[in-house]
Amino acid sequence: MRVGIAGASGYTGLELVRLVPRHPRLELVAITSEQRSGMAAGDAFPGLRGLVDLRFESLDPKRLAERVDVAFCCLPHGGSARAVAELRSAGVAVVDLSADFRLRSREDYARWYGEHAAPDLFGAAAYGIPELHRAELAGASFTAAAGCYPTCSVLPLAPFLREGLVETSGIVIDAKSGVSGAGRTLADGYLLAELEGNSHAYKPGSVHRHVPEIEQELALAAGERVHVAFVPHLLPTTRGMLASVFVRPKAKLSSAEARAVLLRAYASEPFVRVLPEGETPAIASVRGTNFCDVAAVSDERSGTLILLSAIDNLGKGASGQMIQCLNAMQGWPETEGLLAGPLLP
Amino acid sequence: MRVGIAGASGYTGLELVRLVPRHPRLELVAITSEQRSGMAAGDAFPGLRGLVDLRFESLDPKRLAERVDVAFCCLPHGGSARAVAELRSAGVAVVDLSADFRLRSREDYARWYGEHAAPDLFGAAAYGIPELHRAELAGASFTAAAGCYPTCSVLPLAPFLREGLVETSGIVIDAKSGVSGAGRTLADGYLLAELEGNSHAYKPGSVHRHVPEIEQELALAAGERVHVAFVPHLLPTTRGMLASVFVRPKAKLSSAEARAVLLRAYASEPFVRVLPEGETPAIASVRGTNFCDVAAVSDERSGTLILLSAIDNLGKGASGQMIQCLNAMQGWPETEGLLAGPLLP
Amino acid sequence: MRVGIAGASGYTGLELVRLVPRHPRLELVAITSEQRSGMAAGDAFPGLRGLVDLRFESLDPKRLAERVDVAFCCLPHGGSARAVAELRSAGVAVVDLSADFRLRSREDYARWYGEHAAPDLFGAAAYGIPELHRAELAGASFTAAAGCYPTCSVLPLAPFLREGLVETSGIVIDAKSGVSGAGRTLADGYLLAELEGNSHAYKPGSVHRHVPEIEQELALAAGERVHVAFVPHLLPTTRGMLASVFVRPKAKLSSAEARAVLLRAYASEPFVRVLPEGETPAIASVRGTNFCDVAAVSDERSGTLILLSAIDNLGKGASGQMIQCLNAMQGWPETEGLLAGPLLP
Amino acid sequence: MRVGIAGASGYTGLELVRLVPRHPRLELVAITSEQRSGMAAGDAFPGLRGLVDLRFESLDPKRLAERVDVAFCCLPHGGSARAVAELRSAGVAVVDLSADFRLRSREDYARWYGEHAAPDLFGAAAYGIPELHRAELAGASFTAAAGCYPTCSVLPLAPFLREGLVETSGIVIDAKSGVSGAGRTLADGYLLAELEGNSHAYKPGSVHRHVPEIEQELALAAGERVHVAFVPHLLPTTRGMLASVFVRPKAKLSSAEARAVLLRAYASEPFVRVLPEGETPAIASVRGTNFCDVAAVSDERSGTLILLSAIDNLGKGASGQMIQCLNAMQGWPETEGLLAGPLLP
Repeated sequence: MRVGIAGASGYTGLELVRLVPRHPRLELVAITSEQRSGMAAGDAFPGLRGLVDLRFESLDPKRLAERVDVAFCCLPHGGSARAVAELRSAGVAVVDLSADFRLRSREDYARWYGEHAAPDLFGAAAYGIPELHRAELAGASFTAAAGCYPTCSVLPLAPFLREGLVETSGIVIDAKSGVSGAGRTLADGYLLAELEGNSHAYKPGSVHRHVPEIEQELALAAGERVHVAFVPHLLPTTRGMLASVFVRPKAKLSSAEARAVLLRAYASEPFVRVLPEGETPAIASVRGTNFCDVAAVSDERSGTLILLSAIDNLGKGASGQMIQCLNAMQGWPETEGLLAGPLLP
Repeated sequence: MRVGIAGASGYTGLELVRLVPRHPRLELVAITSEQRSGMAAGDAFPGLRGLVDLRFESLDPKRLAERVDVAFCCLPHGGSARAVAELRSAGVAVVDLSADFRLRSREDYARWYGEHAAPDLFGAAAYGIPELHRAELAGASFTAAAGCYPTCSVLPLAPFLREGLVETSGIVIDAKSGVSGAGRTLADGYLLAELEGNSHAYKPGSVHRHVPEIEQELALAAGERVHVAFVPHLLPTTRGMLASVFVRPKAKLSSAEARAVLLRAYASEPFVRVLPEGETPAIASVRGTNFCDVAAVSDERSGTLILLSAIDNLGKGASGQMIQCLNAMQGWPETEGLLAGPLLP
Repeated sequence: MRVGIAGASGYTGLELVRLVPRHPRLELVAITSEQRSGMAAGDAFPGLRGLVDLRFESLDPKRLAERVDVAFCCLPHGGSARAVAELRSAGVAVVDLSADFRLRSREDYARWYGEHAAPDLFGAAAYGIPELHRAELAGASFTAAAGCYPTCSVLPLAPFLREGLVETSGIVIDAKSGVSGAGRTLADGYLLAELEGNSHAYKPGSVHRHVPEIEQELALAAGERVHVAFVPHLLPTTRGMLASVFVRPKAKLSSAEARAVLLRAYASEPFVRVLPEGETPAIASVRGTNFCDVAAVSDERSGTLILLSAIDNLGKGASGQMIQCLNAMQGWPETEGLLAGPLLP
Repeated sequence: MRVGIAGASGYTGLELVRLVPRHPRLELVAITSEQRSGMAAGDAFPGLRGLVDLRFESLDPKRLAERVDVAFCCLPHGGSARAVAELRSAGVAVVDLSADFRLRSREDYARWYGEHAAPDLFGAAAYGIPELHRAELAGASFTAAAGCYPTCSVLPLAPFLREGLVETSGIVIDAKSGVSGAGRTLADGYLLAELEGNSHAYKPGSVHRHVPEIEQELALAAGERVHVAFVPHLLPTTRGMLASVFVRPKAKLSSAEARAVLLRAYASEPFVRVLPEGETPAIASVRGTNFCDVAAVSDERSGTLILLSAIDNLGKGASGQMIQCLNAMQGWPETEGLLAGPLLP
């Protein structure tokens, strides 16, 4: 299957440039970048020398559509919708990483992002977390891959909401992300000199744009509206994401029982690893991979269930998941091209 | 005033070795270390060459008592009590950093730490967060400086409990600490090769030993028993600590109103900086200092009040606070020797 | 081909555990570790869960020999020789990473390492830098993979010595290594708290044990005895190695001419990338890969030729090169299982 | 003495904002910044809240001259000369950190920097390394503080050239710097996501602008023209600088003899610490300080003398040295305001 990556010079695009060639059924034939248009991949990114024999080209959806069967779109929110619309109308399968097609509510989209650039396609994409939307993905040709914070937060929590074991109010999500989540943004706060050894919350108070997406998916699991208190933090590293989720169980729930809930949901999932009791998810175990490690701990003194998870924000939180989505759409084994471990150490 | 530091070669002891000479009323006359006994400070720690002209000595409380007016004790829990008892009975003022004299409940101590090595002195120390225990500290000659997690968590939250503005149940504290909090522990997980770019929760489920201390101080503020859900995380850096505290306001409370509560408590405190709306506490702003930066954000969608704070775990979370305590005990200006900013960048 | 890894829980062993399963002709059947004997790979290293379905076992060369066709040995210097001898006498092909079989001079071995534990095998192994010893490796069944510093230092310099273009005296090698080169050593200096943001030379004055190996290979290229001034430095990161080599050209040599020398040697080598003029080798471009990036710059003002190189000390400097050696020994394409790029970013 | 800092919001300016208030004879009265003009120091840099009660102002040399006795100028090369000229003609003492007044040769300035903006003042400044130019500094009212690479490279090497113990040709300087040396430059390569764990040479081949300054000072020490091969490297951290210098002794020189040379030069210098044999200078020991740690090792096998040094590029390499220069100019003890150790850890 011939693959094109739109927006291939950003961090999520580059991760696809790394992953696509490992996939036995995919052939990378086109990479686009406005800033690096015309440059050989290896001249733009010396790490790619001897590995990727392509030049970046400017994105022309029509011309791209003639050469590829599927497009992975890593374009900015807002701008992505137009390109996706052209690619779709040219019959190309699309896995889109922007927020443009993740939300189900037009009102939410308008409130958080403004006017939509391709309203006819709104709601047309499958939602790209295979563990939660597998049926919807099977046979689909258009998918909106989930955001990193939603993936990391929803995976550990959804099973408890689905089984009705926890309250839907008072949910707290404290998340931590490596700085690659901000892309290659040239701003003081992302300089090594400013961020080395530094850490801080940002956009507290549920004003981060991933909040409506998290709540949409939690509501689907719970069968009712859910509001969360969500605070993301910046970690002084490049890759990786942690979520610590605090919920109130409706009835007493031991750590072992909570772990059993996770196992019921994920024991046969290749990419969600339910950790043994006593272990906590760590970025080092998932960095560079498509894994989501999860654990549950019951804090009976305070009546709180604590759910912990870790992903690579560029892996299971972005590009790895895009490939897993394509596998699910095509009916291929979902692990195809993705079963690799982290660098240790 | 002649100062001795017991346990001066650990991280909190070394921070005192850095801070004491800056204090205009203190003279550092003795430093103890079992492992480095006999070594010149500058041979043991090359960064101290040309600055500290002392040799580490083995701790002998009686001999130390003859030469110092005050002892800063940075000894391990359990072992500290015996040394403190000897120093106290020899008439030396003590600021102790161990957990041995922080708790007010003998039952709590027994449950979390086991048998106490100096039961006669249990409860005899003032509790060392000057902003919360100033009256108790004034004139005292024995203080148990607070732990880093309690300092970072309690400072932003106490004013809201004291004013009765928030529920005492359902409190969530998600904390993050640099690795120096673990001391110079030789274990795989603290190696740079294992921790660089890594992060994870540890001891989730309120099993960390700082929990009873946090709850003791919150109960004092609230006037009633308080249970918290507390999860500490390890950050991939040496110094610094963040706490994100989630509570439910009893009545609607805007971000501006919440900030006003913090200002009522801390506007005249030199070391607690209430940030302007829109800013979040960052480790880089407090590293190497005695400041605690705090902020409050109201998340009205989910009915949650979010309190954020940052300290240097070795500064306001340990050694800086010990000196601030001594200042308070002696009736000196609390800022004496402590008003220094962070390295920028 | 069935593969066993002896010493699989150290950093070089773990890198092989990551790399061997990617190789289409290799099957990983045994991993040994004395410390973790009996543990499942995924219990010992959570990042391996769901990927490696093996248990660590204690090393028993005879029993291992019954189950594997080739053994990758990542054992400590001195101890490796005995295990290798048993494996060889049982007919198993061996790629050894210790220093025990790298040197050609028994006197050098005795001076730098002491008594040899398998003197009959001394000198029996091919030397494992395929770009320099390809003929020797072809068909061999016993190889001593080169050290990281020798690989990084010798690759850029050898072509100039071979062509007689530079003086053999006054050679300076300033090298920098990530801390994983020291293995999982529990010592103060390798703690994140001590090494974060720190850097320093160590073992200056050509007392590092890699010096005789470097000089052996340079002498082979030069056809005469060569002494170097070698100073290694520790970088505040986990993986990666740089070498900056300073030599005096016999006659004027421009940067372009020097680059042409490198291209003559390496243009057709898949793992040695000669950078374009104006670029310098960077760790980020080789981390996690088997590449060695090299560049040459002529400093005509001072009459110095500067050669720069970068490798991953655990990749081309250790485990990646071991697999490349096996490929060369077996006559397989040398890139088999190894053509992967770095994580970007 | 009233102090103004011109260019106070850059990294070297901020370091002066941290250091000046610690100096018992200095009062900070003005800080300038074009970008942050009008902002309170604590609003621009939250770490300064509660410490610095000044607003950044736009630089107006005439108005500044009315309010200060001395100006520390941290302005860009080229632009600094004009401001300095106005400040000087208004009678203000100046310590300038730009390259505009460091060189003694107008030809060198023209070749490396272009046209000079205040040619009348060229050569008028004392050169600011007190250990080497103390007599020149005494009583001076205009000083060009040395660059970081020259300070770090020249200090360990000058005594050997002065005593005629080493050859003046074939000198190699391999230097490594934290990224703060580049200032707050918004470029991809300085982002944490691109530089974390990365390292590489830059501007190899003696094309770095610090080369003529290094050679000027070495020539002064040697009494003859000196050319060096200089390669700077970027370290994946914020602060700190190492230099490894390789020279050929004219006659045999043991490590002990070489150390004695350093001691003859620096035993009574408060800021140059000659390390004991067996120790190597480390960034962690000098970070945040005004120290330069030096060591000498004789590599007799290769006939090379290896000199090692470490400074904080923003301390002894910039702002700390500026204050030390002022102390020397004023005849104050040079340690005034500067005797502080590093954060440990």
